[in-house]
Amino acid sequence: MVTGYRPTGPLHVGHWAGNIETMLALQTDTARDCFFFIADWHMLTTHYDRTDELSGFVRELMLDWLAAGIDPERATVYRQSDIPEVAEMTLLLGMITPLGWLERVPSFKERLRDNAEREIANLGLLGYPVLQTVDISIVRGDLVPVGEDQVAHLEISREIVRRFNRFYGDVLVEPQPLLSTTPLIPGSDGRKMSKSLDNAIWVRDDEESIRASVRSFITDPQKVRRGDPGRPEICPIFALHRKFSPERIDEIEAGCRSGALGCADCKTILADRLVEDFAPYRERRADLADTDGIVERVLDEGARGVRPVAEATLDAVREAMHLS
Amino acid sequence: MVTGYRPTGPLHVGHWAGNIETMLALQTDTARDCFFFIADWHMLTTHYDRTDELSGFVRELMLDWLAAGIDPERATVYRQSDIPEVAEMTLLLGMITPLGWLERVPSFKERLRDNAEREIANLGLLGYPVLQTVDISIVRGDLVPVGEDQVAHLEISREIVRRFNRFYGDVLVEPQPLLSTTPLIPGSDGRKMSKSLDNAIWVRDDEESIRASVRSFITDPQKVRRGDPGRPEICPIFALHRKFSPERIDEIEAGCRSGALGCADCKTILADRLVEDFAPYRERRADLADTDGIVERVLDEGARGVRPVAEATLDAVREAMHLS
Repeated sequence: MVTGYRPTGPLHVGHWAGNIETMLALQTDTARDCFFFIADWHMLTTHYDRTDELSGFVRELMLDWLAAGIDPERATVYRQSDIPEVAEMTLLLGMITPLGWLERVPSFKERLRDNAEREIANLGLLGYPVLQTVDISIVRGDLVPVGEDQVAHLEISREIVRRFNRFYGDVLVEPQPLLSTTPLIPGSDGRKMSKSLDNAIWVRDDEESIRASVRSFITDPQKVRRGDPGRPEICPIFALHRKFSPERIDEIEAGCRSGALGCADCKTILADRLVEDFAPYRERRADLADTDGIVERVLDEGARGVRPVAEATLDAVREAMHLS
Repeated sequence: MVTGYRPTGPLHVGHWAGNIETMLALQTDTARDCFFFIADWHMLTTHYDRTDELSGFVRELMLDWLAAGIDPERATVYRQSDIPEVAEMTLLLGMITPLGWLERVPSFKERLRDNAEREIANLGLLGYPVLQTVDISIVRGDLVPVGEDQVAHLEISREIVRRFNRFYGDVLVEPQPLLSTTPLIPGSDGRKMSKSLDNAIWVRDDEESIRASVRSFITDPQKVRRGDPGRPEICPIFALHRKFSPERIDEIEAGCRSGALGCADCKTILADRLVEDFAPYRERRADLADTDGIVERVLDEGARGVRPVAEATLDAVREAMHLS
């Protein structure tokens, strides 16, 4: 099982309720080898001009992971750029990846559109799916946790793997998607929670910041004051209750529909819960941030763990291509 | 000084009179560090589906070089794919190389056209100039021997280097072209001699094959038999005489123009000269081919020589990009 994060900043509630939970569940399954990596080379595809922020982001993400319970004893936790074999295998797989496939990937056009004011139409951005394929294949990943909006991204990796195997023999493993069961977590504006939309609740925020973030959420616009009946199915606060207050969900739904529960009180219930849930995380994160050299130790250990796997795959690829 | 060859097959007279002569001259200049490499990864951009031939071609090219006098004591002679640092630096430089630059490179469109019946429109072919830039920059190459038809190829490498240095500081050396003084060597049909045009004279051929190749050359079509006056300036045989029979060039030119020298005799003079010039090469090549492990030894030594240089450059690149 393999999954990677671009180091773009701190964890938000959407990450916490989605990938992180999946990662925690999978790392406890001793029948699986888990590979969790920080995708710093991927950051260069859109942020090549902001690399001075990169090492800080890598450190922050690793502290977030460790505080959330990602355990380097149970999973191999590493940084992409510590594995030079990834670069060589990317060069080799690029030789057989049709430009037409890459130009048609939806995220290529989306990223160009979302960054219209910046010059990011570079070879690295176009080649992103090849690098992603190598991230998965080089550790022989057969299972990749994805949200429903990412199934298409995995499909091109499957196509590249099939094409390689067709040319050179049955060397690479075709990865399968592991669909997340968590619905998309909405942000304060009702759209998917994300850093770039500036609508997130940050897991490491202090109590006051979390309460302020929750208060800023939109709710059902027809429910103006307590007493008005609300529609929980369109309310982002209710979507968060589903995830974080499952044992009170019937009571909250009934209160919203009848009007007995006002939006301000409903938000307070959620904020109390988030503050409580995240408190141990914040404490662990503060301790970890004070522990000298912890990030470096985990990265060193992770690189030592993953490199023999990566070398073995690259050797098999070279041999299949008659390059050894 | 750095130059590379794609391992496509044996040396022909065009190589011999062009690059090889330049390489021999440069390696004797002790003020220069010379890097000569076999560009096997570059072969994959057009021949990813024929890799079973590749290791044979690498061996043949190395034997050709050694027989021609390329001296691993005077130059660092290596295979591109033995230098994993090249792959990582190619990934990094790809992040800042605009797709528009690559799509406009004339050789990209030419290769697509020349291989219209094959599927080669892959990421690797588009990225060829980035890999070429790394081949040069990673050994801090400041001088690259090129024919006049290749100056444009070097220009994009210069542009990529300037762009890198603009973003990340003055790290890479901008390479300069060393223009070959040898005019293009024509083949049997009067076009530039090349393997793919099937118009070459092979340096390692035996006497009879060389004589047959020379006889197959076109000459001035207005000179049908001895006695007819010829125009040496349009005759490919005369172009070869300029290179290989410089001390008899006035006599040959006068004989051709007056008609006293017929084309058959003129070709015999050239063939005699080529047979004589190449004889020591053929002998050395046969000895080398019988020497167990010679190619492997040279490649091992070359990799040991170049890798510290490549590592130092890659370290400087990583540091400039804040990736170290």
